[in-house]
Amino acid sequence: MVSVSRHYLDHNATSPLRPEAREAILNALEQVGNPSSVHQEGRKARGMVDGARDAIAALCGASARDVVFTGGGTEANSLALTPGLLVDGAPKPFTHLVVSSVEHVCVLEGHRFKADCVSRINVDPSGIVSKDHLELLLQDIAQKGGRALVAVQAANNETGIIQPIAELAMLVHRFDGLLHCDAVQIAGKLPLDQMTAGADMIALSAHKIGGPQGVGALVLRSGGISITDKMLRGGGQERGARAGTENVAGIVGFGAAASASLMSLAENSAAMIELRDQAETLLIEAAPDAVVYGSGLARLPNTLAFSIPGLTAETALMAFDLGGVALSSGSACSSGKVKKSHVLEAMGVASDIAACALRVSFGWTSTEADLQGFRAVLEKMVRQRKTNARAA
Amino acid sequence: MVSVSRHYLDHNATSPLRPEAREAILNALEQVGNPSSVHQEGRKARGMVDGARDAIAALCGASARDVVFTGGGTEANSLALTPGLLVDGAPKPFTHLVVSSVEHVCVLEGHRFKADCVSRINVDPSGIVSKDHLELLLQDIAQKGGRALVAVQAANNETGIIQPIAELAMLVHRFDGLLHCDAVQIAGKLPLDQMTAGADMIALSAHKIGGPQGVGALVLRSGGISITDKMLRGGGQERGARAGTENVAGIVGFGAAASASLMSLAENSAAMIELRDQAETLLIEAAPDAVVYGSGLARLPNTLAFSIPGLTAETALMAFDLGGVALSSGSACSSGKVKKSHVLEAMGVASDIAACALRVSFGWTSTEADLQGFRAVLEKMVRQRKTNARAA
Repeated sequence: MVSVSRHYLDHNATSPLRPEAREAILNALEQVGNPSSVHQEGRKARGMVDGARDAIAALCGASARDVVFTGGGTEANSLALTPGLLVDGAPKPFTHLVVSSVEHVCVLEGHRFKADCVSRINVDPSGIVSKDHLELLLQDIAQKGGRALVAVQAANNETGIIQPIAELAMLVHRFDGLLHCDAVQIAGKLPLDQMTAGADMIALSAHKIGGPQGVGALVLRSGGISITDKMLRGGGQERGARAGTENVAGIVGFGAAASASLMSLAENSAAMIELRDQAETLLIEAAPDAVVYGSGLARLPNTLAFSIPGLTAETALMAFDLGGVALSSGSACSSGKVKKSHVLEAMGVASDIAACALRVSFGWTSTEADLQGFRAVLEKMVRQRKTNARAA
Repeated sequence: MVSVSRHYLDHNATSPLRPEAREAILNALEQVGNPSSVHQEGRKARGMVDGARDAIAALCGASARDVVFTGGGTEANSLALTPGLLVDGAPKPFTHLVVSSVEHVCVLEGHRFKADCVSRINVDPSGIVSKDHLELLLQDIAQKGGRALVAVQAANNETGIIQPIAELAMLVHRFDGLLHCDAVQIAGKLPLDQMTAGADMIALSAHKIGGPQGVGALVLRSGGISITDKMLRGGGQERGARAGTENVAGIVGFGAAASASLMSLAENSAAMIELRDQAETLLIEAAPDAVVYGSGLARLPNTLAFSIPGLTAETALMAFDLGGVALSSGSACSSGKVKKSHVLEAMGVASDIAACALRVSFGWTSTEADLQGFRAVLEKMVRQRKTNARAA
């Protein structure tokens, strides 16, 4: 059997561990100590967690005391989505949750809001949240005497399309609401503080920025926010916000990945844009009828989402995989099957075109060789498509 | 500054990473891939998670499909403690939660049961759950037309005292209830399948058995149990029971630690008992008035909990730490302060004696040298106590 060299182009699903993170994890694994223990070993573990907390705070322009470590992005989003939020200790309950219709499934779930208190904001055909629709929803909630928590992602995982968080935040605040921003995909790719400016809470995931899987954070960026109905209760870890012994090694790896990605942000973004734009060019050359989602719009530097009509995602993914190229049809889903994309559906993409959606997402390990690997399989597949079309 | 060699005797708080777990983690960190991705990298990650699932199933005599990985023991217990449990799909709701009064705080919290639906089972002065009291509580609930979920730990984290799970399970099942067992402390120390026989669900934590911190599992051991109100929702990971990208490296480390601890269980237990019994003997020699909790009772092989009257835990912990010995006053608490023990209080220990409670917990790294390190500080401290007493 001939071994095919692999080209990993699925960084939005998970990004390989950065060497800085690996080193930090290895060091942490050598230590012993529960951060809650009072002895020297415990204090050392606590110090490592606090160092990582500083790194996460620096990544998102927050103060370290506002960082709550979680078991991942899903937990971070879930922790935020609750009527049990207090601002400055004042019991002004949040009665409604308003989410964009292109959010990650864990946000669409609405978590601790009852289903009939959750509404969805429309997006326009380019995938951008409709401010007009959000305003209507907020007016409606205000007229009912309610108050809204709004959740809008900074950038979409499937298309890379970026939302105007600062503008949305102003609108939400005008209605006395709070804006939670799922920043899982934008972290490490664009300046987080700028791209999520105005958001009151942001959710992060370590493994999307070259940290380990199974670690994340909710950053309560606006002062005075507290969560009264914690999800994990018991010990007083994370200043009472999240009980359970801390994932010390994972947190330390998250911190190191945050520092490394912050340091290389500008350089890395530029490199991603170059690879992404080259990929888009060669895609259009190979298949002039390809549809590129978000082309020309503000989108993540690393993400190219497209459909080649007549080439279904399931077939294409298999061909790419056999050809040594790991990419995705959009969101990684847990069944190992390709599911219909709610994101493309919300954008009004016809279902036969949406069924052909593919996503290339570059990252810190990506090279020109990966691009050429992608090109080789793409061109072969497109030739095959033409042959099939002629034979039909 | 003279460096003092350290003696780590706080394995119930967290146990150092086993070499097998470290190796497995390092290997997993080299891989890239989201277990939900369909490509080769994703399938490989999924295979690693499934291998660990087999190892956890083997540790607790369950089938792999019943293992739900979580972000730790607290999350595993929290996931179990909900009225939203179905048995064989039949909607027989659990109206009440009954917990022993010596449970870990994360179980005492009652999680998704309302506070007025949670009752506590008394323990006798030796810390063992009162079957008579449990029966009274179950009768009362049955008379109200309710149905009880009961949570009793296999062994106590502070004292090591073991509960008669099999007998309790029979009683609970007689009342059509379910028994959840927090097996975090017994795992890796005694045969898990025997010690939790009869329990319908068990909670585990990786870092108590030499795996990494931040990983755990809920094992739905009796067939047909499903949790309708999941805590983390979104992706379909863990067969729908727990959304979020899996902590692949952590899970793999957990699996390796489970296999290693299962393999060395008998040998390790015997070594622990010898060290523990020697520690108890030298304690009584040094301080004949010492109170040993659970002495002569069924308790964990590795745990020695005691009070030396007149020697407060806070003072003693500091002296041990300065002398190079890491031990604990009981449960690791998150404030870095020594708290009053609800466990000793439930056992009716006088508060002045409880304030002197210390816990030595041995583990797979423990040696005769650690025991001698403990002895040296203990004897010095007891001499000091006598001098102080004479001076007073």
